[in-house]
Amino acid sequence: MAGNSFGTLYKVTTFGESHGEALGGIIDGCPPGIQLDFEEIEVDMARRKPGQSAIVTQRKEPDSVQFLSGIFEGKTTGTPIGFIIPNTNQKSDDYSHIKDNYRPSHADYVYDQKYGLRDYRGGGRSSARETASRVVAGAIAKQMLPEIKINAYVSSVGPIHLDTPYQELDFSKIESNPVRCPDEKSAAIMEEYIRDIRKQGDTVGGVVTCVIQNVPVGLGEPVFDKLHAELGKAMLSINAVKGFEYGSGFSGSEMKGSEHNDLYNPDGTTKTNLSGGIQGGISNGMDIYFRVAFKPVATIMQTQDSLDNKGNITPMTGKGRHDPCVVPRAVPIVEAMAAIVLADFYLINKTY
Amino acid sequence: MAGNSFGTLYKVTTFGESHGEALGGIIDGCPPGIQLDFEEIEVDMARRKPGQSAIVTQRKEPDSVQFLSGIFEGKTTGTPIGFIIPNTNQKSDDYSHIKDNYRPSHADYVYDQKYGLRDYRGGGRSSARETASRVVAGAIAKQMLPEIKINAYVSSVGPIHLDTPYQELDFSKIESNPVRCPDEKSAAIMEEYIRDIRKQGDTVGGVVTCVIQNVPVGLGEPVFDKLHAELGKAMLSINAVKGFEYGSGFSGSEMKGSEHNDLYNPDGTTKTNLSGGIQGGISNGMDIYFRVAFKPVATIMQTQDSLDNKGNITPMTGKGRHDPCVVPRAVPIVEAMAAIVLADFYLINKTY
Amino acid sequence: MAGNSFGTLYKVTTFGESHGEALGGIIDGCPPGIQLDFEEIEVDMARRKPGQSAIVTQRKEPDSVQFLSGIFEGKTTGTPIGFIIPNTNQKSDDYSHIKDNYRPSHADYVYDQKYGLRDYRGGGRSSARETASRVVAGAIAKQMLPEIKINAYVSSVGPIHLDTPYQELDFSKIESNPVRCPDEKSAAIMEEYIRDIRKQGDTVGGVVTCVIQNVPVGLGEPVFDKLHAELGKAMLSINAVKGFEYGSGFSGSEMKGSEHNDLYNPDGTTKTNLSGGIQGGISNGMDIYFRVAFKPVATIMQTQDSLDNKGNITPMTGKGRHDPCVVPRAVPIVEAMAAIVLADFYLINKTY
Amino acid sequence: MAGNSFGTLYKVTTFGESHGEALGGIIDGCPPGIQLDFEEIEVDMARRKPGQSAIVTQRKEPDSVQFLSGIFEGKTTGTPIGFIIPNTNQKSDDYSHIKDNYRPSHADYVYDQKYGLRDYRGGGRSSARETASRVVAGAIAKQMLPEIKINAYVSSVGPIHLDTPYQELDFSKIESNPVRCPDEKSAAIMEEYIRDIRKQGDTVGGVVTCVIQNVPVGLGEPVFDKLHAELGKAMLSINAVKGFEYGSGFSGSEMKGSEHNDLYNPDGTTKTNLSGGIQGGISNGMDIYFRVAFKPVATIMQTQDSLDNKGNITPMTGKGRHDPCVVPRAVPIVEAMAAIVLADFYLINKTY
Repeated sequence: MAGNSFGTLYKVTTFGESHGEALGGIIDGCPPGIQLDFEEIEVDMARRKPGQSAIVTQRKEPDSVQFLSGIFEGKTTGTPIGFIIPNTNQKSDDYSHIKDNYRPSHADYVYDQKYGLRDYRGGGRSSARETASRVVAGAIAKQMLPEIKINAYVSSVGPIHLDTPYQELDFSKIESNPVRCPDEKSAAIMEEYIRDIRKQGDTVGGVVTCVIQNVPVGLGEPVFDKLHAELGKAMLSINAVKGFEYGSGFSGSEMKGSEHNDLYNPDGTTKTNLSGGIQGGISNGMDIYFRVAFKPVATIMQTQDSLDNKGNITPMTGKGRHDPCVVPRAVPIVEAMAAIVLADFYLINKTY
Repeated sequence: MAGNSFGTLYKVTTFGESHGEALGGIIDGCPPGIQLDFEEIEVDMARRKPGQSAIVTQRKEPDSVQFLSGIFEGKTTGTPIGFIIPNTNQKSDDYSHIKDNYRPSHADYVYDQKYGLRDYRGGGRSSARETASRVVAGAIAKQMLPEIKINAYVSSVGPIHLDTPYQELDFSKIESNPVRCPDEKSAAIMEEYIRDIRKQGDTVGGVVTCVIQNVPVGLGEPVFDKLHAELGKAMLSINAVKGFEYGSGFSGSEMKGSEHNDLYNPDGTTKTNLSGGIQGGISNGMDIYFRVAFKPVATIMQTQDSLDNKGNITPMTGKGRHDPCVVPRAVPIVEAMAAIVLADFYLINKTY
Repeated sequence: MAGNSFGTLYKVTTFGESHGEALGGIIDGCPPGIQLDFEEIEVDMARRKPGQSAIVTQRKEPDSVQFLSGIFEGKTTGTPIGFIIPNTNQKSDDYSHIKDNYRPSHADYVYDQKYGLRDYRGGGRSSARETASRVVAGAIAKQMLPEIKINAYVSSVGPIHLDTPYQELDFSKIESNPVRCPDEKSAAIMEEYIRDIRKQGDTVGGVVTCVIQNVPVGLGEPVFDKLHAELGKAMLSINAVKGFEYGSGFSGSEMKGSEHNDLYNPDGTTKTNLSGGIQGGISNGMDIYFRVAFKPVATIMQTQDSLDNKGNITPMTGKGRHDPCVVPRAVPIVEAMAAIVLADFYLINKTY
Repeated sequence: MAGNSFGTLYKVTTFGESHGEALGGIIDGCPPGIQLDFEEIEVDMARRKPGQSAIVTQRKEPDSVQFLSGIFEGKTTGTPIGFIIPNTNQKSDDYSHIKDNYRPSHADYVYDQKYGLRDYRGGGRSSARETASRVVAGAIAKQMLPEIKINAYVSSVGPIHLDTPYQELDFSKIESNPVRCPDEKSAAIMEEYIRDIRKQGDTVGGVVTCVIQNVPVGLGEPVFDKLHAELGKAMLSINAVKGFEYGSGFSGSEMKGSEHNDLYNPDGTTKTNLSGGIQGGISNGMDIYFRVAFKPVATIMQTQDSLDNKGNITPMTGKGRHDPCVVPRAVPIVEAMAAIVLADFYLINKTY
């Protein structure tokens, strides 16, 4: 109930603060006999880790995962997969200035109010570093479902939008630039914009679009556990996410039924896909696509007022090395959470 | 796992098809000693029920709820509250034409694929009639948390948007018009638009905005069960919902950190509230507000191609009495799901 | 969390007080396409219901179940099965004498302490009448697993024990006598003993033995959800149960390893079965057998001291019609809970 | 669902094979602000670990726990407590002889059948080494509930029974002898018996009795999650357990109601306590006591037939250093599981 588990049959539980000894987690319910490609897991870890390019935070975190159980001779055994990601390069003194201070739009204040105390070092449990564990669990989920293709990419950075429909994009170019935008022109503009924002000591938000292909018909459970409802929860649980829409999304609310309905082909596919691959909460075999909105990172290198725990307003300037724009590193996290949701519903669907 | 329960400590499980004998549910975990106001429950039921105004479906469904347990001498006892809502006015023969046909953008096809059979009468389990049970559970959740104020309203119908910030609206006017839009001018335009859509035999989508006030600090659980993540799942689980955003939402993704951060007042409140009353997944005491996008109802009174279960494309014209616009009746459902989420987190928060 | 659900994939949630309008429940997760034999369900209901023979309570409760959802044209649809069992013959005034009194060894006192109020009519939620809903859910679970044979029987009544190994008993004789003991001689002695106890206005406990045959290998989950751990919880959750043992049970604790180990046959079966069909929490294909101890019913027709809610000790004499011995009617309840556990693990095992 | 979690609000998830890199777990839901006494945790770990006395296995396992998260400056923070117990002294080659062989009354066969593969080293996930993680979680649960006193002790070893009622025993003597039997005479006889069994290369079972005192009224949830049902499941989930009884237990099934009922004192306590401190599944404030039956350890130093994975019966002699009698080391495990159950119900009870 304390909110550190996700999924029911493919269940991921994570632990760890940004400046404790290690992060980690347990994946319970992964089926036995899956031959794991550990390099693939490291690839996703590397896509999320800090310091990977000039436009993300320059912190160094090796982020190597150590598997402690549930794998024997390279294969999953069906028993829980325990893993840790040591925190090797944390300097606790970097954070002494926030011990008694609540940074604006951070979780410092609510943690103190809710728990009566907090591990103030680097955001503690509310740090986005926790998502490293999600990437591990998602990377294994992807390998559990090799036929399903999940591709996320950056579709907007601040005011700069890539409006090209995903069908016209070449997903193989997502990793060709540090923004993770498959359209090279847009990527260049976005990158320039992020560099400029960083020079200002500021940050900016953005949107990640995710496309899931080759999904079998039947994943998702009515009534409350609709596939898109779980995807939405999964995405909204990622740090800094403010919105989620799938298929026609918010723009679908402006349409008429006669325009919005997806007419069938004789084979059960549909001519259009405003539904976004999901009907009544259940996958219909068409592409699933959705958009996830991220707010700008709250830690900026400018001076802003903070609140201390005695009720005084005091100016504070961000220290450390933070992301000017979170979305490039969010791409593998979005994919990971999508994979976890699909793995879970895949297993649930086997029970019918 | 089969998706018919919502919540963990305030747990709602529903059952029922649109044309079975009854819908109903069980509320498990409602604390003892709550003096119930049954009229208030009926008020919310009446706001959801068909036939309440000229711009919603003209079906007659009395929708009266019968409580079978968990209440003694007007008070909750702490034992599960079982309830049923009989289906009194269902004519099964109305639906014989869809027995072997999959209506576009309905769940017919995926149910048949997933389960191998379906109760084809009126949408069966995928019918929005299921939401009646949610309204019952939400109405009791509201009474469990009398200090919290939940107000939802229609903020757009098709292309017609009410852009006034919620702070400038008078929530007492929400029920003054059949659209449930608190701005009377906008309401009149929206109503006219819906009447026009209905004449065309068409339908239209819309947006419901929800504002939650007087929430104590501390509701919501990191990491996966963030308050907004559960609210998002709750809303996305409502039929026809395509998107959810809270606080600054998608527009927040275009902002800079220096603009988006909510600076503190000495009492822990914030000068702005782009965060939408939630930090790190936990309520901070400010107003929570979010927007929910609904697609147009798929059943239209025009002729569209459908697919039969032998792979033939056949034209079909909607029968029965359907909503030209779903959002006026969705308002109490949005409120109900919000109340259920808050009741659940309220109980969880008592365990610290 | 409030304890009214059992199972994870075959999940049963029940509601209802003994003197409310109805008992009932929801079965969520029953696979689609099961052709239900409603007469079989009624048979199990009849085995549990009061008034069925001279040695059980003479209360009249028709106990007919009404299914409200989840079944279409006689088959399960995969959607939740809602059902109610109306309380038709309850006289509330029978119970006014216990409104302010706590009967010895009943739940009256703890309910008042825990919840601050209670539905005092007939034991309310703590009444064994709740088990009627379990029998419904168990009867459907049995039909979901037609190859598995579950036979429970009375193996002791008070001091009278049937020590014959189950392998030497003819299960077809269980229903040939009102005690539900398959050994006719023992049954006659037990019946005579129960009649005598009833004449004394007293009650007596007993033991139910349950044998499950044709279980596939692989049901049960390590570590915490061992098959026998869930069976144990299921049995201990039945009213009046004080103990559970499986396989060699308590007597196994007196044995040596060299005696207790079950040696293999080449086909994976074992020469002996002291393990009781379960190894490491997982079924091994051999017969599962276990014993469930029931205490004597607390309501006796003699005068005993009770406590009122003002702290006074007052003599009280049982009223109404209670079971002199609970075990004959417990037999179908034990079977039902066993079937629910097996159905749940059967579905979980499909996810590997 | 895969069975590696226990508890709902105080939720323990464990991972780890006996010969992997480490065992460990996550405790989710532990309230914040608990000042931990790490020495107390080590004391319980030492009571469980091998090699602690002459009558248990002579394997050397340091069993030191490393906490990775959820604790800051010695206090719990309310975030998940992740911990690992490294496997430092495991020699995998010790177990090559069981790679293709199924030992009698072990889980080897069922694991292979269920999962299609297994980590055969030392029993893998089915090894009782997993219980080290339970002891960690139980030790913290004890510190969460300092007023509740949990004392378990060995009450029988093979045919040697300590029949003294627990009220007449001095619990401070439990740790005074390696058997963990508080009666010194019985302890000496038991110890002698175990030494003799070990010389024979054999093993023997036994019984652990547990007494829980100072429990507040109101813990436990009707209907399915009765306090004794969860205690029963908790105990039955421990390796080698074959039976559980509480209060009057199996002997209560032989009694009459007039003898078994516990009459009240004016303060709500009872004159007798055959109920075992629980009424209707809810603690009534009296002592809770129960008995747990353990079978003899299956690995014996004698030669017995095993089955190989090609269907051949082959003689096998146990290697390594195994416990001749499991119950002395089981005492802290029984206490730990009891503490986890109580912590969980304590938190649940706070929600009313």
